[in-house]
Amino acid sequence: MENYTDIPKDLKFAVLEKIKPDEAERKKLIEIQEELAAEVKAASEKLGVSGVLVKMVGSAARGTWLSGTHDIDIFISFPEETSRKELETLGMAIAREVAKLAEYAEDRHAEHPYLNIVFKGFNVDLVPCFRVASAAHIKSAVDRTPFHNDFIKARIKGCEDDVLLLKQFMRGCGVYGSELKTQGFSGYLTELLIIHYGSFENTIRAACSWKPGEKIDIMQHSEIEHREPLIIIDPTDPRRNVAAALSLDNFCMFIDCCREFLKSPELKFFFPACPLPLKDREILERLESRKSTQLAVIFKTPDVVEDVLYPQLYKMEQATAALLKEYEFSVIKTGVWSGENETVIMLELISGTLPNVKKHIGPPVWVKEHAQKFKEKYTGAEDVFGGYIESGKYVFEIRRKYPTAKGLLENQLMSCSLGKQVHQSVNEGFEVIENAEMCRLKEFDFRVFLRKWM
Amino acid sequence: MENYTDIPKDLKFAVLEKIKPDEAERKKLIEIQEELAAEVKAASEKLGVSGVLVKMVGSAARGTWLSGTHDIDIFISFPEETSRKELETLGMAIAREVAKLAEYAEDRHAEHPYLNIVFKGFNVDLVPCFRVASAAHIKSAVDRTPFHNDFIKARIKGCEDDVLLLKQFMRGCGVYGSELKTQGFSGYLTELLIIHYGSFENTIRAACSWKPGEKIDIMQHSEIEHREPLIIIDPTDPRRNVAAALSLDNFCMFIDCCREFLKSPELKFFFPACPLPLKDREILERLESRKSTQLAVIFKTPDVVEDVLYPQLYKMEQATAALLKEYEFSVIKTGVWSGENETVIMLELISGTLPNVKKHIGPPVWVKEHAQKFKEKYTGAEDVFGGYIESGKYVFEIRRKYPTAKGLLENQLMSCSLGKQVHQSVNEGFEVIENAEMCRLKEFDFRVFLRKWM
Repeated sequence: MENYTDIPKDLKFAVLEKIKPDEAERKKLIEIQEELAAEVKAASEKLGVSGVLVKMVGSAARGTWLSGTHDIDIFISFPEETSRKELETLGMAIAREVAKLAEYAEDRHAEHPYLNIVFKGFNVDLVPCFRVASAAHIKSAVDRTPFHNDFIKARIKGCEDDVLLLKQFMRGCGVYGSELKTQGFSGYLTELLIIHYGSFENTIRAACSWKPGEKIDIMQHSEIEHREPLIIIDPTDPRRNVAAALSLDNFCMFIDCCREFLKSPELKFFFPACPLPLKDREILERLESRKSTQLAVIFKTPDVVEDVLYPQLYKMEQATAALLKEYEFSVIKTGVWSGENETVIMLELISGTLPNVKKHIGPPVWVKEHAQKFKEKYTGAEDVFGGYIESGKYVFEIRRKYPTAKGLLENQLMSCSLGKQVHQSVNEGFEVIENAEMCRLKEFDFRVFLRKWM
Repeated sequence: MENYTDIPKDLKFAVLEKIKPDEAERKKLIEIQEELAAEVKAASEKLGVSGVLVKMVGSAARGTWLSGTHDIDIFISFPEETSRKELETLGMAIAREVAKLAEYAEDRHAEHPYLNIVFKGFNVDLVPCFRVASAAHIKSAVDRTPFHNDFIKARIKGCEDDVLLLKQFMRGCGVYGSELKTQGFSGYLTELLIIHYGSFENTIRAACSWKPGEKIDIMQHSEIEHREPLIIIDPTDPRRNVAAALSLDNFCMFIDCCREFLKSPELKFFFPACPLPLKDREILERLESRKSTQLAVIFKTPDVVEDVLYPQLYKMEQATAALLKEYEFSVIKTGVWSGENETVIMLELISGTLPNVKKHIGPPVWVKEHAQKFKEKYTGAEDVFGGYIESGKYVFEIRRKYPTAKGLLENQLMSCSLGKQVHQSVNEGFEVIENAEMCRLKEFDFRVFLRKWM
């Protein structure tokens, strides 16, 4: 084993002081939860809906929420035999009745519709669900949550601080959150890690030696093979990997942070300094120093939720890089930034220009028919510089269709396979800017992104 | 079969008129041969060497020489039991005695020493050899020649014109000559092809459908596997491939020319127009049109025979391209030109410059020890732009050591594995010039090479 330093108790106290809800916050949350539960009950009675139970779930219900987060999940639970239609109609009717008391309400949609409200400053999800016998019999993904809640509540007692420390540590590493933008660790996942390893410190130490394929199966009931880097079998569902959303790079980033943290356990891992936006002058200096080509594809940010937007952006990032490679541009790296108004796909290239001449390699001379057709096509054709035989194959030097990456993107980007909303937005208009032109993009958050980028 | 045109008889006549020795040339050659044979006999008698026979070999002896070539091969044949030393001493003594009558004489060396003389305007090789029982028992490569001679003389009668046509056709294609510079077809090889296929026309037609691995074994006695593109088993030696020196690209070039020729059989295939040297203005225009980077590595031509020089130049061409690729430059093509004074390795690149930033990919994060060492080495080091995790691996953006191909070659060319004489010459000094600087190289023959090159 490596000779890592112990994590000082003082450090943990210092972190907890900042993130652990105090008595007042805790009391307030419980009050609000109870008030909401009573409102749901009242609403269902008022609407004459019977058999409805109220379930408090999520970190608020389990005492593992980070101070300052005001998220409450209230599940409106219907008997299993309720029809899908009824669940949606009656569930939403009850939620809307409760929402009459809220400052703000918004219909949302996962597998089923649910209601998101702001109630006395708290961000509350009112979620209709089925009350099934076990998590293996769920009718919808949300039906699983009450089982998660029961599992964690029964085992987390006394370890709440460790969960808080782990969540905040992951936040500091930038790997906390299982939504499709982040592709990191979910709250439930951190709780399972703490239950499995017993403490924050044990989890960090164990993670230093994780390898892809690392598997934790608390209930020893795994039923199928998983191919994700981290496999944490859901204790309430033997077929589900709780860490399925975690990307390979975030898995590695967490391992890396755990190692660094144990080498020198400091507060900055939990609360990293906010990077400053890059100034125009710094952009120009860095361009001059790197001497690569920076391209930015800019378009209007589509008006969809992040869980829909980001997978489309990541897909576009891949597709754009593939297009450039297909046309022989060398891509150093790619990135995505999306703000309220504009979205940017960033591409760093070895060079944004290629020579006019392009080596076009044909079939071997002895593959007679193909070879002759190839030769006929290019011999004496317009825009052919010359031809020769190399390694037994006909080679023609032809004129490159797109000698600049900017020209290629401007002409061929729309031929890439893009997600629906991104396609729509790009189709309405996009722009490709190069190197120093980036100074035009002034948004604070983009400039922060740039500091890490270049 | 394809619908190729017949080769017009008139065309063959027109070619033969230019290349077939007339009666006077033929008579002159026979006279000279007989005179030389008599001189060799006289010399051996004068020196008191017994058991010596004179053998006329080569195309002159077989009636398959191209008009205007004045090459005569005289073999001075010793009994098999002669020692190697004796053969060399006595053989060369006889040759030198004959050379007293010559305008010029030069010692040469293949496996054994031999004498090259100019005698009455003819270029004569006087070659001592062993008189062995069969070609399978040769003591030196030259001992094979008399057997070749006997084999061809016994079978070529009536087909001499076909041999002449094939040789001239191959000359026109640039694939005639088995020396290491050309890597083409030898004279003996053309004779075997005519014997096998029966005529010039049949050979050309057959070659249109050749594939690598094409094998002709006239005596049906092949004993070992060969991997060259064309395999013509020596009728006098079951283990030898007569076409071993033929390169894949010349094999293909010949196939290509045969197809083109049959499509439109014209005189130009036998006598292609001499390309004109490229003018300065044309060089600049072509550079501007191609927009690639042309590099020329120039050094003094080593003073060695072509069979020693060219393998070393081809090796250097490969090594230089490999060096450039190792440092991430994209090579479009490479070439070699060698004149009396200067030798040039030509390199065409996608670009002669690369950005300062270089993506250096390390081990996967989970290969703990390696990964940690890698990270430690680059974290915060000088000339490191930044680091991140990509596809599970640590990546650092480091400063490229050689951002220009010219700088790379100037610094690292001598670290390439080069042949002895080329190494010596390059070590004494070389220069790397770029693009328009090529206009400095004025040699006619180089400028002719350039016309094909760019």
